[in-house]
Amino acid sequence: MSILVVGSVAFDTIETPHGSADHCLGGAATHFALAASYFTKVRVIAVVGEDFSPQHEKVLTDRGIDTEGIEHAPGLTFHWTGSYADNLNEAKTLGTDLNVFAEFTPKIPDAYLDSEYLFLANIDPVLQARVRSQMPDVRMVCGDTMNYWIADHAANLAKVLRDLDVLLINDGEARMLAGEHNLVRAAAKVLAMGPRTLVVKHGEYGATAFFGDRSFANATSISVPFRAPALPISEVIDPTGAGDSFAGGFYGYLASQPQLTPAVFRTAMFYGGVMGSFAVERFGTERLQSVTREEIETRFQLFREISHLDYAEA
Amino acid sequence: MSILVVGSVAFDTIETPHGSADHCLGGAATHFALAASYFTKVRVIAVVGEDFSPQHEKVLTDRGIDTEGIEHAPGLTFHWTGSYADNLNEAKTLGTDLNVFAEFTPKIPDAYLDSEYLFLANIDPVLQARVRSQMPDVRMVCGDTMNYWIADHAANLAKVLRDLDVLLINDGEARMLAGEHNLVRAAAKVLAMGPRTLVVKHGEYGATAFFGDRSFANATSISVPFRAPALPISEVIDPTGAGDSFAGGFYGYLASQPQLTPAVFRTAMFYGGVMGSFAVERFGTERLQSVTREEIETRFQLFREISHLDYAEA
Repeated sequence: MSILVVGSVAFDTIETPHGSADHCLGGAATHFALAASYFTKVRVIAVVGEDFSPQHEKVLTDRGIDTEGIEHAPGLTFHWTGSYADNLNEAKTLGTDLNVFAEFTPKIPDAYLDSEYLFLANIDPVLQARVRSQMPDVRMVCGDTMNYWIADHAANLAKVLRDLDVLLINDGEARMLAGEHNLVRAAAKVLAMGPRTLVVKHGEYGATAFFGDRSFANATSISVPFRAPALPISEVIDPTGAGDSFAGGFYGYLASQPQLTPAVFRTAMFYGGVMGSFAVERFGTERLQSVTREEIETRFQLFREISHLDYAEA
Repeated sequence: MSILVVGSVAFDTIETPHGSADHCLGGAATHFALAASYFTKVRVIAVVGEDFSPQHEKVLTDRGIDTEGIEHAPGLTFHWTGSYADNLNEAKTLGTDLNVFAEFTPKIPDAYLDSEYLFLANIDPVLQARVRSQMPDVRMVCGDTMNYWIADHAANLAKVLRDLDVLLINDGEARMLAGEHNLVRAAAKVLAMGPRTLVVKHGEYGATAFFGDRSFANATSISVPFRAPALPISEVIDPTGAGDSFAGGFYGYLASQPQLTPAVFRTAMFYGGVMGSFAVERFGTERLQSVTREEIETRFQLFREISHLDYAEA
């Protein structure tokens, strides 16, 4: 089934201890769409500028991604400049040139209106809400946000959260949103804001899902959380987009399944980790463009081997 | 089979956001021995002072722990004072009164010499090495250390590491020991120092085992690490001793098994997490004294449910 994603398509200029990349293709919607494209059909709503060439668009269309909803506007594409220090866990933003993104007004092509799954990538919650309201019949709505919207646009964000099936954020964002350090208590507070399920990403330590009473993924009456591992990686080349790639693998797998069950949800968490682990192996979208379905399955088995008691002995 | 543990038996004065406790029973050997006692016979080598009463010793003997190796010396017992801020991840040491521990010279009772498993808790590596050399025929040696020994006693520590089957330390210690931030590369460097297996504890995010070529727990030729979850806990009352309790559950289970296999190792990692999760539920050793074998098994199943794809749906 089709996923409609609304979010940023951007150019990133990145410096990490392993090197640098100038104006590589990036943006939350880009990473998400590429990761999800290995599982299901993806449609993108975004805006780009005149510096976004047919070659850039081809990166998406080569993966079968529908780009009809990418608006071409006069001016330059959103450009983010950032660097990572040795620990690679946190990006330092050196520059944010919104460019055409500053006036972004998502427009949904008619052909997109039958999308069953909606992903609201990290953008202004006002825009998230607007897209949501135009897609009243979707089967599932999943979303992301960040510290900026949590701190300064709380009321608008609250409206979006109220109506989400799954909220995907990281530890720091969950703690900030809840105003609570303990992750279990923070998760309970976030779930009380509306999302049926909360997925908290822990970077190199994997991710934890917390289930509300009305989550389809809740296998038990006592709402035991679920922890998916991350791959211990010896050389993280560029962590940019890892979280969006996690979301793409997670949601792409969900959307590819005929039935939504707790087991499907758990498997989706693993595929999220798998796609996140590929994303960081190269700068920008390089690895997500070229990974094969076979590599994905092999790594999925590796994730199982890393975390399961019953791994068959040689 | 019997585990011989050498380490500290102490009194802890602790302040956490949930309250405080004055002179509660603590020390690495104490937490380790109590946690391991649910799985196998444990013998303790330590030193205590005149303030260590028969009631204190009874906490250990009530769990079937052999205390013949606990030396009673004139003076006071080792006393640690510390506090935890809101995040509960790191203790702030407010006072360390070594007392009788300052002159600790481990003496191994004859009755202990047939112990099959040796655990070198976090003490001066010179003492760790001395005990190790007096137990040449043990089946397995497992050890712990801390930043103080890593920074200022590197040469002595190196001699201990050379001969360890399993080294159990936390993230910060692993990175410090290796002089390397990336955990996978840090683990490779630590394994090159001698330990056949390295278990890195991540606090609330669980633990990862890295296997060297000669590790019995290495199931594959490519040395895939193993990640065990931790229980997301809504109220950590006192994290003191969580790492030692992890070690006790881990090593106690290993020592209880007739054969050492990769599957046994994985299961031991889960029991480590289980015992660590009980330890933090109350101040001092209170919870570890009173947990039942049934509660341990129930929580083990919970750890499986938290982390495994194939959890049976209701």
